[in-house]
Amino acid sequence: MSAQPKQLMEQLHVLFHPASVAVVGASNDPSKWGFRIFSNILSGRFQGKVYAVNTAVAEVLNMKTYPRVTDIPDKVDLVVIVVPPPAVPQVMRDCAEKKVGGVVVITAGFAEVGGEGERLEREIVDIARSGGIRFVGPNCFGIINPHHKLYSQMPPVFPPPGPFGIISQSGNIIGTISRVLIQRAYGCSKCASIGNQADLAAEDYLEYFAQDPVTKVILCYIEGFKDGARFFRVAKAVSKTKPIILLKAGHTQAGARAAQSHTASLAGSSAVVDAMCKQAGIVRVKSLDELVDVGIAFLRQPLPKGPRVGVVTAGGGWGVLAADACAEAGLEVVTLPDETIKELDSFMPPWWNRGNPVDLVAGTSGDNLFRAVETVLRCPVVDGVIMLGLMPVMNPGQFGRRSEGDERDQVRDAMVAGAAQTIDRLVELSDRYGKPLVIASEPLGFGSQVNRRIAHAVADRNTVVYEMPHQAASVFAKLLQYSKYRQ
Amino acid sequence: MSAQPKQLMEQLHVLFHPASVAVVGASNDPSKWGFRIFSNILSGRFQGKVYAVNTAVAEVLNMKTYPRVTDIPDKVDLVVIVVPPPAVPQVMRDCAEKKVGGVVVITAGFAEVGGEGERLEREIVDIARSGGIRFVGPNCFGIINPHHKLYSQMPPVFPPPGPFGIISQSGNIIGTISRVLIQRAYGCSKCASIGNQADLAAEDYLEYFAQDPVTKVILCYIEGFKDGARFFRVAKAVSKTKPIILLKAGHTQAGARAAQSHTASLAGSSAVVDAMCKQAGIVRVKSLDELVDVGIAFLRQPLPKGPRVGVVTAGGGWGVLAADACAEAGLEVVTLPDETIKELDSFMPPWWNRGNPVDLVAGTSGDNLFRAVETVLRCPVVDGVIMLGLMPVMNPGQFGRRSEGDERDQVRDAMVAGAAQTIDRLVELSDRYGKPLVIASEPLGFGSQVNRRIAHAVADRNTVVYEMPHQAASVFAKLLQYSKYRQ
Repeated sequence: MSAQPKQLMEQLHVLFHPASVAVVGASNDPSKWGFRIFSNILSGRFQGKVYAVNTAVAEVLNMKTYPRVTDIPDKVDLVVIVVPPPAVPQVMRDCAEKKVGGVVVITAGFAEVGGEGERLEREIVDIARSGGIRFVGPNCFGIINPHHKLYSQMPPVFPPPGPFGIISQSGNIIGTISRVLIQRAYGCSKCASIGNQADLAAEDYLEYFAQDPVTKVILCYIEGFKDGARFFRVAKAVSKTKPIILLKAGHTQAGARAAQSHTASLAGSSAVVDAMCKQAGIVRVKSLDELVDVGIAFLRQPLPKGPRVGVVTAGGGWGVLAADACAEAGLEVVTLPDETIKELDSFMPPWWNRGNPVDLVAGTSGDNLFRAVETVLRCPVVDGVIMLGLMPVMNPGQFGRRSEGDERDQVRDAMVAGAAQTIDRLVELSDRYGKPLVIASEPLGFGSQVNRRIAHAVADRNTVVYEMPHQAASVFAKLLQYSKYRQ
Repeated sequence: MSAQPKQLMEQLHVLFHPASVAVVGASNDPSKWGFRIFSNILSGRFQGKVYAVNTAVAEVLNMKTYPRVTDIPDKVDLVVIVVPPPAVPQVMRDCAEKKVGGVVVITAGFAEVGGEGERLEREIVDIARSGGIRFVGPNCFGIINPHHKLYSQMPPVFPPPGPFGIISQSGNIIGTISRVLIQRAYGCSKCASIGNQADLAAEDYLEYFAQDPVTKVILCYIEGFKDGARFFRVAKAVSKTKPIILLKAGHTQAGARAAQSHTASLAGSSAVVDAMCKQAGIVRVKSLDELVDVGIAFLRQPLPKGPRVGVVTAGGGWGVLAADACAEAGLEVVTLPDETIKELDSFMPPWWNRGNPVDLVAGTSGDNLFRAVETVLRCPVVDGVIMLGLMPVMNPGQFGRRSEGDERDQVRDAMVAGAAQTIDRLVELSDRYGKPLVIASEPLGFGSQVNRRIAHAVADRNTVVYEMPHQAASVFAKLLQYSKYRQ
């Protein structure tokens, strides 16, 4: 791994857990990045000391400013730099002199623009190296640690504490991943917008997240590797204990051109990346929504031992779509043995299809659905179950449609409690048989508030209900892929 | 087309616009399908007469029952049959004797189970034919016409009136499509759950929807064609005026087996379906969410004249992902001519990337984003624009984060109004240059209520904001595909 792994890990720890933060270039002008970073740190209610550094004004957001980092009377753990490129080298020199804990260079206009920018980037690397400073960026959106109430980033997004460590070569993408996680009622452990990786590179954060106890799953967005061999070497070790999900962008010519101008990245061949991912146990995905959806699956699903899927569906069409998606994802919609069919026969309605997908058809009561899921999970030729349709087990019919006032609140509470109990029962079944149970169900249609509360109840149980059969199949295939690596 | 198209169209019109509905098998037992259908018709506040037909009980939901359809003293336009399979032939005979307008057979257990079921299905077809009755199903979930307040379907889903005609071989899928539409703040013109297509087939509804003035886009979920040649012949004519979006399921072996047991469908080769779709101008999609997302695009987007896309992005990473997705979808992220670059240069920040994607980088103000979109839309080598990131034009920073009470309501109103104005400006630009402008933006994160109101404001303008860059690229490619057919 790295030359001085222990020291590096300590430095990264200080970066993400500073006792004090200084923003160089903090500004009162809402259109400036220096305002955004500074106000996000304050809005996030950072618990340590915050300093504004600005040569031109005496106060920023009613706080006294210091002309230079070296003018700050106390110890400074984290310095965030948001001044124009030509001013960055001197600030970095000040940071070295002040012996700060770590630096984030937000400023863009370095290697990604070529020429003078490239030269400046080399200069700040040299200054940092000789001063013993490690830094994030440049050309990045900052870092987040919700567990430490540190929101030193550009976009006004405040993910709550959660299990996902995010490493992204694009700042906006950190914002997007955070928002999608929030939509699914989840949060982050730590986010690093790594920018041009002039000093700290993706694999450094990977190593740090690997040993970080609150990070359970690592989500990466990468356009180009600074040192691909080292990245995959580190990843190979990390993925033995923590799943790494990777969205590698810039895999087409058009995308590679865009990546070059965005983060000075040479994107590399997609086939090579595929091969490296396979060797390193990295789960590769194709889109940001898939990055999040696959990530959540790794929080608590038991890993499948093989590709044999049982599909239990409350609707025939969903079953057909899931069967198609399973086949396309390399999974096997396995033929159920006679004894399993017989067992299902003992409680299923007479018209059931006696096959896999096990189609419960509308009108099947909630308990039959639980029994069917358990019967198929227990079946020895089945490695895991995809369950489609939660409505029948939630039994919304009992709640009626037009209650009002207090009664309405009670109905809502009952809906949320019912959903939570349903998920508890299903999670318990999955755990009991040690097999994954991936659930997809159309949007519940209980209204946005109840839906939101149900999403939180589901997330509290470290799981998720996907909306579409194809998502469930794709997620199952990714669990299997990682399972093979771990075996 | 069909032998007596005019008469068939009139019969289908009566089916979807009945003045009276009778439910044969209406029940007081909430676990029975006969209860669900009957209570959904009442819950949907159908404006015409409703009759319960049941041989065993005197009242259903406090309404007098009739033992047989022939006992109903008035004219009956629509009969919904929910009795067990062996009882269906006699009911169909009664319908013929009563000369009802049309019939929906909900009951399952016909051709899809083989043997006796197949024989029964042939029997009811014979009875209907000789009685001059046309019918939907069997083994279906019913029909919906929100414009007529007719909700004679199984699932408790009540889509509002809207522009989408839905033809589905699976009832659950109608429910799912409706729920996804509702989630996007849209509704349906008419829904037909076509089941086994023993009498009326997909292409009959297609013909009817083609001449239905409130249906603007037709969404189809098909597992197998009853008469593929006729379906594609009809579709070829229909798609000259209205877009048809098709999700063809059962295209893998596992899916085809599931389809066989679900709707007795022989699924057929996917490659053949692809070729037929191309000839008939049908836009084929791969999943239910794509079916809806592509469908909405056809409501108001001008069709692109070619594959040359300009990408305007508020974030570099989104641009890279969109460029990748465009390349994969066969679109060209076109090199912008010098004069367009110069024009952009006149107002863009100095560090912009001078390429396509046009990366506005964080900190670009809202007006610059509009100007950039307009400049690229106007560019003669660009056939349409993909715009990524709405947050900068919405300028949420102005609203602050912690307002309360009345002030909070005002802030919310301002957010919704701001979003509506933004969409108005963008739609106007797209119309002015006659080129599609497909927008994707991460979840807005304004809270579920404001997000919901914004979704409605967007839908009121007949458009949608996708969440992911890959969705925008895929939708653009589908618009192009249809555009080529129409040319």
